[in-house]
Amino acid sequence: MDELSLLEQLLPGLHCGRDTVIGPGDDCAALDCGGPELLLAAADHLIADVHYFAENTRPEDAGAKLFNRNASDIAAMGGRPRWALLSAAAKDFDNDYLLRFSQGAARAAKVCDASLVGGDIAGLPFPGLSASLTILGSVPKDEVITRAGARAGDLVCVTGCIGNSLLSGHHLNFRPRLEEGRILASKHLAHAMLDVSDGLLLDLQRMAEMSGVQMVLDPARVPLRAGAKLPEALSDGEDYELLFTISPEREKELESIAASVIGTVRAGSPAVLDPAGKDLLTGKKGYEHGKN
Amino acid sequence: MDELSLLEQLLPGLHCGRDTVIGPGDDCAALDCGGPELLLAAADHLIADVHYFAENTRPEDAGAKLFNRNASDIAAMGGRPRWALLSAAAKDFDNDYLLRFSQGAARAAKVCDASLVGGDIAGLPFPGLSASLTILGSVPKDEVITRAGARAGDLVCVTGCIGNSLLSGHHLNFRPRLEEGRILASKHLAHAMLDVSDGLLLDLQRMAEMSGVQMVLDPARVPLRAGAKLPEALSDGEDYELLFTISPEREKELESIAASVIGTVRAGSPAVLDPAGKDLLTGKKGYEHGKN
Repeated sequence: MDELSLLEQLLPGLHCGRDTVIGPGDDCAALDCGGPELLLAAADHLIADVHYFAENTRPEDAGAKLFNRNASDIAAMGGRPRWALLSAAAKDFDNDYLLRFSQGAARAAKVCDASLVGGDIAGLPFPGLSASLTILGSVPKDEVITRAGARAGDLVCVTGCIGNSLLSGHHLNFRPRLEEGRILASKHLAHAMLDVSDGLLLDLQRMAEMSGVQMVLDPARVPLRAGAKLPEALSDGEDYELLFTISPEREKELESIAASVIGTVRAGSPAVLDPAGKDLLTGKKGYEHGKN
Repeated sequence: MDELSLLEQLLPGLHCGRDTVIGPGDDCAALDCGGPELLLAAADHLIADVHYFAENTRPEDAGAKLFNRNASDIAAMGGRPRWALLSAAAKDFDNDYLLRFSQGAARAAKVCDASLVGGDIAGLPFPGLSASLTILGSVPKDEVITRAGARAGDLVCVTGCIGNSLLSGHHLNFRPRLEEGRILASKHLAHAMLDVSDGLLLDLQRMAEMSGVQMVLDPARVPLRAGAKLPEALSDGEDYELLFTISPEREKELESIAASVIGTVRAGSPAVLDPAGKDLLTGKKGYEHGKN
């Protein structure tokens, strides 16, 4: 099973009505419910012994992680989380475990002024726990930020630090960058944004593709978490930081959210390059990409 | 793992903000997004070899069932489905299977004028397929129907037929009762409504508890699907029909939706009784319930 190639086959055939302002493929879908704000919607899994180690993780912390990784997708669109629905399917995880897991998700929601309003709990035919949470948020219509808005000449920025998420415990105890996302959206600072969950390089590549530009990343400028090392930190993932681009004229305004400039955007066929022009994903020189 | 006792422990502690008009415990949550309509939201699982037999079911049909059983929850609140998010976690189900499963869900959505707008696909550490779909719908604020509105003197009604869902294939090829739900809502016909998924008796008991009334069911009046037999048909489940109550003065208006009257509502501590006063769930005489 290969998620990326599956999505490549599935997404082009999906029919979306006019009330779907942003369809599948960004951090969230953006939906027009007739009110003054867009509804944001996203769903993400947390699976025992895939996304956390059940043996040495408190169920409350696992549930909170599930909520927070979804809230991070709302932050990436500039929104605020409002509601969540939790689906959990399990076998050999008892009621006490599932209750504490659900309460962890509900408490994390409350911290963000959001509410757990529904979901489903079911049995599995095999031992394990597979949970999925759908998050709903909202954002003023003229403030929503997609992955597609990066422009040549922009600065590439990231909040917080990158790397060593697993061993440092960051993947469990991070807080979603909701305040930062709201500042970047409400001030119309960010041109494009996403949350770094699958590794900085891969997520940079996605932004490059969605925006139709090249990202020039200076690895030496990437702020590393304690214990993180290059080049692994650039692809480890689970950072849950905001990656975004801004106009260089507005760099000073970054101070209010403690973000770092890590590169620049330039015209060209989508790629992530180092300052010497080497493609950081393939290791090849950037000009070897087919230009069209 | 016992879903009911888990929910009894979890739900009272959940915090819901003022914009949550109807919280957990009904077919859908109803949320105020600031527009003229309420947003309806629900989530439900479909797990291979729990909710369908993977071996002899086309993946398209399984995906469609997952959408339709969620759409049935929207129908039960009087709403229309708008959007869906699909989460699937699998191992040993290949890309072709998951693509066809997802396309089945997307096609079923399109039939209802709804769109698949997001979701997540993940790997499992054990062989199997656990899918969950979150459905979003909408309903005019003054038309939403809950489980809690049944009144003494009402008639108890059901759409379609009950029983033998599994062997007849109804559990796979049913169509959600969306038109019927909209008629019952827009004409303010139904006082209380839910969709029959866990068996008629159990769902009647839920409506009785939420409404604080007794349901008097006449089993002889329950319309049975071909091959269905009493008493099993009353508890088999997967009927996906609408169960609702109406004022007896408006019985004639049922003709437009081909529903049957199967009982009456009376005052008393929540129970489901037969016309002789026997509790149909416990087999005891109804007066043995503690009255308070």
